[in-house]
Amino acid sequence: MGTVVALSGQVGGAKLADGLRRLRGSDLTVIVNTGDDHEVFGLAFSPDIDTMLYTLGGIAAPAAGWEPAGETYVLHEMLHRLGSEHRVRVGDRSFALPLLRTDGLREQITLSQITLGFCKTLGIDARVLPMSNDPVRTVVITDDGQVSYHEYLTLLECEPVVKGFLYAGADGASIPDEVREALYAPDLEAIVLCPANPYHTIQPILAVQGMRELLRESGAPVIAVSPIVGDRPLKGAAGKMMQELGHEVSARRAALEYYQLIDGCVIDSADETAAEGIRACGIDVSVAPTIMRSEDDRVALAQVVLDLAQSVRVRKEAEKEAERNG
Amino acid sequence: MGTVVALSGQVGGAKLADGLRRLRGSDLTVIVNTGDDHEVFGLAFSPDIDTMLYTLGGIAAPAAGWEPAGETYVLHEMLHRLGSEHRVRVGDRSFALPLLRTDGLREQITLSQITLGFCKTLGIDARVLPMSNDPVRTVVITDDGQVSYHEYLTLLECEPVVKGFLYAGADGASIPDEVREALYAPDLEAIVLCPANPYHTIQPILAVQGMRELLRESGAPVIAVSPIVGDRPLKGAAGKMMQELGHEVSARRAALEYYQLIDGCVIDSADETAAEGIRACGIDVSVAPTIMRSEDDRVALAQVVLDLAQSVRVRKEAEKEAERNG
Repeated sequence: MGTVVALSGQVGGAKLADGLRRLRGSDLTVIVNTGDDHEVFGLAFSPDIDTMLYTLGGIAAPAAGWEPAGETYVLHEMLHRLGSEHRVRVGDRSFALPLLRTDGLREQITLSQITLGFCKTLGIDARVLPMSNDPVRTVVITDDGQVSYHEYLTLLECEPVVKGFLYAGADGASIPDEVREALYAPDLEAIVLCPANPYHTIQPILAVQGMRELLRESGAPVIAVSPIVGDRPLKGAAGKMMQELGHEVSARRAALEYYQLIDGCVIDSADETAAEGIRACGIDVSVAPTIMRSEDDRVALAQVVLDLAQSVRVRKEAEKEAERNG
Repeated sequence: MGTVVALSGQVGGAKLADGLRRLRGSDLTVIVNTGDDHEVFGLAFSPDIDTMLYTLGGIAAPAAGWEPAGETYVLHEMLHRLGSEHRVRVGDRSFALPLLRTDGLREQITLSQITLGFCKTLGIDARVLPMSNDPVRTVVITDDGQVSYHEYLTLLECEPVVKGFLYAGADGASIPDEVREALYAPDLEAIVLCPANPYHTIQPILAVQGMRELLRESGAPVIAVSPIVGDRPLKGAAGKMMQELGHEVSARRAALEYYQLIDGCVIDSADETAAEGIRACGIDVSVAPTIMRSEDDRVALAQVVLDLAQSVRVRKEAEKEAERNG
C-alpha cells in the first residue's frame, strides 16, 4: 500500500479524510483549503483547517462538525455585551486554535508547521497541511459586486446571485514544501478530491500556482467524490451556485468541474443514471452510498475511493502496455 | 459637591472605587494601575483595569472579584489540550476585554479611549482610565534577580524575597489627557488612594512622570485608605513585602508609604492604636471599618474617606486663614 493525498475542506470533506485516515494513518496527507481564512479580533481563523483538525482529532461535534463537541458561547456573549458587532457566533473552544495559530504566525512559524504541530498535540497520525502558507482569498463575484467568500457566507447568508469566483493571491501563492513532498512521494497511490463545494473549497486549492501541474505530474490516479446526492448538494450552497453559474445541478456537472484533472469519480447511488454521461467524458465512475452518517460510512466510502484509484491504475497500465505492444 | 479622583487597582481598590461611584456617579474618575499589564497569546491583558470594569459594571464574581461572575474555563482547557503551556487559568469571559482591547490598540485607539468605551458599554457612569497610555512595567527585584510583577505573582507565586521595585518605563510615560483633565478640575474635592498593595498597585501610578506633582498642584486633599487590617494585609503579599523591605507591617507603615503626599489616612478600627503615630507625622486620621463585605460597606467607607477629605480641607483653610491673620 502506498501513500494518499486528499484535497479537502468543509465537514463532508473532513469526514472522507477521516475515513482515509482510518485506513491509512500516517500514510495520508490532507491538503486543506485556506481560501475562507479571515481575521476576527486580529486572530487568524482557518475554518476548513479547524474543521479538519476537530474531525481527525475525534473531537468534532456530531451535528455541527465545524466546531468541537460540547461547544459553549459565553465569550461570544461577553464580547457582544462589551459592544462587539461581530455577527458570527464563535464558540469558546473554537477560539483556541486561532489564538495559538496567531501566536505562532507572530513568531514567524509557517502555517504548515503550526498545523502539523496541532496534529501532533491532537494525536492525529495523518498530516494536515494548508494549501499554501501565503494568503489566498476566495472572492465571490455577485450581482452587487465582489465580496470575500467568508462575508458572502456569514453576512450575506449566500443570498446574492453568483456570477463567478476569484482566488485572490492564488497566482503568487507558493505550495508549501510539505505539500510538495507528499505529492512527489514515489509510492503515491491516489489523489482524492473530497466531497465539498467545488467553487470555494476544492477550486481554491487547485488555483494555487503550480498545483494542477503538480497533481498531474505525480502520475497518481486523481479521484473526485461528488458532493451532489440525487441532483442536489448534500449540504450548503453548491446547488444554488451551480444554477446561477448556468450549469445543471447534477453529479455529472460535479465531475465536470474537474474535467481533464480527474481520472475517476465516485457518485452517489441516487445518481446512478449519471454514470454513463460521466464515463462518456473519459472519467471512470464508481457508484456507492456517499452520505457519511457513521464512522463506518466514512471508512466504506474511503475504501470505494481507493478501490477506484486502484482500478484506474490497472486500466492505465493495461493501456500503456497495449500501446507498447501496439 | 465636587469631583473625585481615585488611584486604584486590585479587588479592594475596585470595591472602594465602587463605593465612591455609588456616591458620586459621573463625578468620579478612577486612575488605574497598568504596571501589571502583560501579553498572553499576543493579547493585551490589563488585570487591574478589567477588575475595575467588572466591579463598577456590577458583573464581578462575588468571591473572585478579578473576573466576571459565573466564569467558566473551557477555552483554557482547550488551549492546554492543544499544547499551550500558559499556566495562568484565564476564564472564557475574561478573554473578551483583552480581545477587544488588542483590536482597538491595533486600530491606533488609545488605551484611555478604549477603556472609556468599555465604561460606556458596561453602563458605568464614572470614568475609568489607565495611569498612562505608554507601557509601564512593575519589576520586582528579588534575591534571584529581576522579574516582572506579573511573573512574580503567577509563576513564582510571590515566593522569592523582595529587595525592591522598579517601574520600568514610568520615567518616560506620559499622563493621558483625560487623567490630566480630571486632576485639573477646578471643583476637585478629593484624591483617594484606594486600599491596595502600595508597591505594585499605587506606587506605579505615582511613578508616572509628573503624576506626584500633578496631585500636589491640584490642591485637593489626598486621602489614603490603609490596606492593613490588624497589622496584617487584608489580602495578598503586602505584609510579606513590607517585612522583606525591612519595614514593620502596620497601618502606620501603610500611611508612611505615601508620606509627604497624603493629607489624611483612613485606618481600620482594628488598628486604632496606630492613629496617634500617624497623626504625629502630620497626617490626619479617620478610624473606621475598612473591610468591604457588602455594597453598603463600600459606600460607608467611601463616605468616611470623603468626610475626612472635607475635614482636611476645612482645617487647611483655617490654617491659611490663621496665617493671613497671623
